[in-house]
Amino acid sequence: MQDLKVVLWGLGAMGSGMYRLLGMRPGVEISGAVGRNPAKLGRDLGEALGMEKCGVTIAGDPREVLAGSGAKLLLHSTGSFFKEVYPELVLAVRAGLNVITIAEEMSEPWAADPDLAAELDGEAKKHEVTVIGTGINPGFVLDALVIALSGVCFGIEKIEAERVNDLSPFGSTVMATQGVGTSPQEFARGVKEGSIVGHIGFKQSITLIARALNWQLERVVEEKEPIITETRRETPYVVVEPGMVAGCFHRAYGYRKGEAVISLKHPQQILPEQGGVETGDYIRIEGSPPVNLSIKPEIPGGTGTIALAVNMIPHVLKSSPGLKTILDLPFPSCWNELKR
Amino acid sequence: MQDLKVVLWGLGAMGSGMYRLLGMRPGVEISGAVGRNPAKLGRDLGEALGMEKCGVTIAGDPREVLAGSGAKLLLHSTGSFFKEVYPELVLAVRAGLNVITIAEEMSEPWAADPDLAAELDGEAKKHEVTVIGTGINPGFVLDALVIALSGVCFGIEKIEAERVNDLSPFGSTVMATQGVGTSPQEFARGVKEGSIVGHIGFKQSITLIARALNWQLERVVEEKEPIITETRRETPYVVVEPGMVAGCFHRAYGYRKGEAVISLKHPQQILPEQGGVETGDYIRIEGSPPVNLSIKPEIPGGTGTIALAVNMIPHVLKSSPGLKTILDLPFPSCWNELKR
Repeated sequence: MQDLKVVLWGLGAMGSGMYRLLGMRPGVEISGAVGRNPAKLGRDLGEALGMEKCGVTIAGDPREVLAGSGAKLLLHSTGSFFKEVYPELVLAVRAGLNVITIAEEMSEPWAADPDLAAELDGEAKKHEVTVIGTGINPGFVLDALVIALSGVCFGIEKIEAERVNDLSPFGSTVMATQGVGTSPQEFARGVKEGSIVGHIGFKQSITLIARALNWQLERVVEEKEPIITETRRETPYVVVEPGMVAGCFHRAYGYRKGEAVISLKHPQQILPEQGGVETGDYIRIEGSPPVNLSIKPEIPGGTGTIALAVNMIPHVLKSSPGLKTILDLPFPSCWNELKR
Repeated sequence: MQDLKVVLWGLGAMGSGMYRLLGMRPGVEISGAVGRNPAKLGRDLGEALGMEKCGVTIAGDPREVLAGSGAKLLLHSTGSFFKEVYPELVLAVRAGLNVITIAEEMSEPWAADPDLAAELDGEAKKHEVTVIGTGINPGFVLDALVIALSGVCFGIEKIEAERVNDLSPFGSTVMATQGVGTSPQEFARGVKEGSIVGHIGFKQSITLIARALNWQLERVVEEKEPIITETRRETPYVVVEPGMVAGCFHRAYGYRKGEAVISLKHPQQILPEQGGVETGDYIRIEGSPPVNLSIKPEIPGGTGTIALAVNMIPHVLKSSPGLKTILDLPFPSCWNELKR
């Protein structure tokens, strides 16, 4: 790949990681950056992200960056929901850029909003670019990897997959959206009121699996329960006393012929080992043959999401135009060596 | 998929399994079959495979089957080596059929013979069909799955993958090609003379991984060692006394900058548990992040190969023409329910 120009939109932890990773890949040039944080606007991108100067200025107005950059591709990391990111994505598409986004709902946008998905698909085809959502979850562990394993089966009765991770490295935003540090009553209220959201993307993962397997599902049901700790757990960001909530056990089920044929589980808590829980990614297929996969420890979410987005680049550049999912493209691979 | 007509060429254990699996998939019709075993020629395909009559007669001459079948796709399982299967594949291609073959070398035919691969690619493009090799190994465990996992990495230093299986179900042909029941001296002689071949496809797996990762390898080295048993091991097909050979430990290494950066291991023996060995598929990536995957027990080879070949069908029908590898297409999924 020669001199691929890329724009970054979204300069938080994920966007910053993409910047770092792109710098390790020969042949890629960052030609523009769009930020939101007023303190970063107008500053040099590299410097603002705590690295060396790179000569690219962070802009607040995406229009000028997209129009003037000569870029062929946008790496996008500003939000989670399709409706929220749609205006940004369509702006990039109309400027002729391919888009790789880590917005969770974009891993299967039809499941979030079929009309909007049809619209974005039409725009992408019209402007001859490809748009795809990726990430570690949704996008890999609880869907793509399940689907890949299914290929060795004659038939499948049931799928159960679980991602057990540790929230300890995360800060106050994640603690709040997962309900860490709340009382069981506060947790229940937070779930009801929508401030405790748990994991975003179960519907996407279940829809992707069902589509790959040609299963018609009647419904997708989600459950959120508090993980209550028996011991005191403490991180730099939160202290959780016994009897309080250390995390959110979020589950989702896809029903077919009255039976939960797809069960996805994602308990997220701080210091899971204090609850006797081993982190890891687990997939169990009941079928012929049965398949029983473990990845221990779990693939780290941040690194994995950043890597998948960047590693998807060659496939997106080769893809036919339109709004795609991971079902349409080959798996991304770690396509180049680290510069050393 | 509506009324897809498929031809089977090769009616051994694998072809017979494909026949059974295709019968479970609505919308697929077997319109022709080519066999080699004189006892089966002229017989009804279903009956000859020990099932119900199906109205398809087993032919010995592929030309008449390929020309008259109206089929769009060939499922091919007659041999392992590119040179050996090439005349058969090109015949099908010229008759306008897409081809899915489980010939091991076809999982990466360029590694076996780049000129012949270019020729077959040209023929496939000319006749607007797709040709691809698949199977559990090569084709999945020690290559495709490794490549899929690599996508979560910023960078990779080293890859080690191992497939530990049990040869106990297999008959006398496999015992001979793996050297089971020989003395260590006979094993050494068999390896030297080429009668003990071990695993076929290491070069393909290593080439696929290197290509996905954009690694230039200097060389691929293979080693075969006898697995000598300390206890008496017995299956319906062979008895192995202590001190004799229970299987073949076949390894392959891909070297880059003087270092074995890809190590693939495939110890195949009867009754491995008697040697204290647990069967399974294992992948360890040294990189950022490291990834440590286990599938226990190992995915069964026969079932997995048959399923992958049949599950590849929808992707092959959608693919652009030419000679492809698993790097070019999405992962096959178990795309339909079992008829029950």
